[in-house]
Amino acid sequence: MLICKVVKPLVSTNRIPGFEHKHLQVVLDGSSNKVAVDAVGCKPGDWVICVGSSAAREAAGSKSYPSDLTIVGIIDHWDPDKS
Amino acid sequence: MLICKVVKPLVSTNRIPGFEHKHLQVVLDGSSNKVAVDAVGCKPGDWVICVGSSAAREAAGSKSYPSDLTIVGIIDHWDPDKS
Amino acid sequence: MLICKVVKPLVSTNRIPGFEHKHLQVVLDGSSNKVAVDAVGCKPGDWVICVGSSAAREAAGSKSYPSDLTIVGIIDHWDPDKS
Amino acid sequence: MLICKVVKPLVSTNRIPGFEHKHLQVVLDGSSNKVAVDAVGCKPGDWVICVGSSAAREAAGSKSYPSDLTIVGIIDHWDPDKS
Amino acid sequence: MLICKVVKPLVSTNRIPGFEHKHLQVVLDGSSNKVAVDAVGCKPGDWVICVGSSAAREAAGSKSYPSDLTIVGIIDHWDPDKS
Repeated sequence: MLICKVVKPLVSTNRIPGFEHKHLQVVLDGSSNKVAVDAVGCKPGDWVICVGSSAAREAAGSKSYPSDLTIVGIIDHWDPDKS
Repeated sequence: MLICKVVKPLVSTNRIPGFEHKHLQVVLDGSSNKVAVDAVGCKPGDWVICVGSSAAREAAGSKSYPSDLTIVGIIDHWDPDKS
Repeated sequence: MLICKVVKPLVSTNRIPGFEHKHLQVVLDGSSNKVAVDAVGCKPGDWVICVGSSAAREAAGSKSYPSDLTIVGIIDHWDPDKS
Repeated sequence: MLICKVVKPLVSTNRIPGFEHKHLQVVLDGSSNKVAVDAVGCKPGDWVICVGSSAAREAAGSKSYPSDLTIVGIIDHWDPDKS
Repeated sequence: MLICKVVKPLVSTNRIPGFEHKHLQVVLDGSSNKVAVDAVGCKPGDWVICVGSSAAREAAGSKSYPSDLTIVGIIDHWDPDKS
């Protein structure tokens, strides 16, 4: 799983039906922006655990959900400068 | 999911039957070109969300469709310089 | 999917039975060589679309085929300098 | 599979239910931190084998477990300077 | 699939039961070491084809085997300087 920082919510009105209305967050993975489905309810600035691969689907709610990156946990304490 | 910019449609006449006639788009992921199946109907210049892994298959129409990158949404507003 | 250039066929006599006798091609993905199962019949110099992930398996013939990269289409026109 | 060094346990109180109470470890993959589910019982400083992709799920206990990186073995002897 | 060079066998006594006693090899993928399950019987110095993703599992013996990288063939002739 990746350690990412939540940047901001992402709005995409024109999306495939299978994506439903789940919240999407822009997350920072190192220096690159990615989009993750928010399964825990996080806010900008949170350090979170993101799961990818096929596991991202079940983590987002069902094994047919079309996610390849899902936020599955908020890290209690994370100091990026110490790591 | 990746945040990509749509470059242009891609024409591939000689393709496997399983690929059907779905539209393919060249998308820019950072500085590298990739090919994605277009499931939303986008145009060059659009900023889009691309899903990979096994989720790309169902997002393209069925769980047996041979895609590993599918455009699942158009981002309403995206400023690459601010991100 | 990746945009790759076909380099040359690859010969591997000692292989697992599940690999069967399908043709393998060395393809160039950016600056790195990879091996792909050829499902379209391409030749050195062709620009091709390669699919990875679990989709590579069905694209190679069956969902139990052990491929993680399969050539699924030949690109009609590709100018790497313009892209 | 990746060869990683165990850094420290990771605490995430707010996590999805499917993640259960399994131990998570921060592991170093080259120079980047990742999070892995600990299926063998390792400690900081251990050199371990981490499996990704869908295999990480079954390795973590069941094929529906939402892991994409699981520690599956401790390496008996590993000298990073010799490798 | 990746083109890797076999470095040496890897010993991991403390491993999950699902890993069984299959042989593991350290392989060099470009400049990074990875661990692969050996399904063909290779030796240090061999140039091999490694398959990843879910295909690595069936290639290692069964679709529930927890591998994400499996050696599926030995390349007959490979000159890294020419490639």
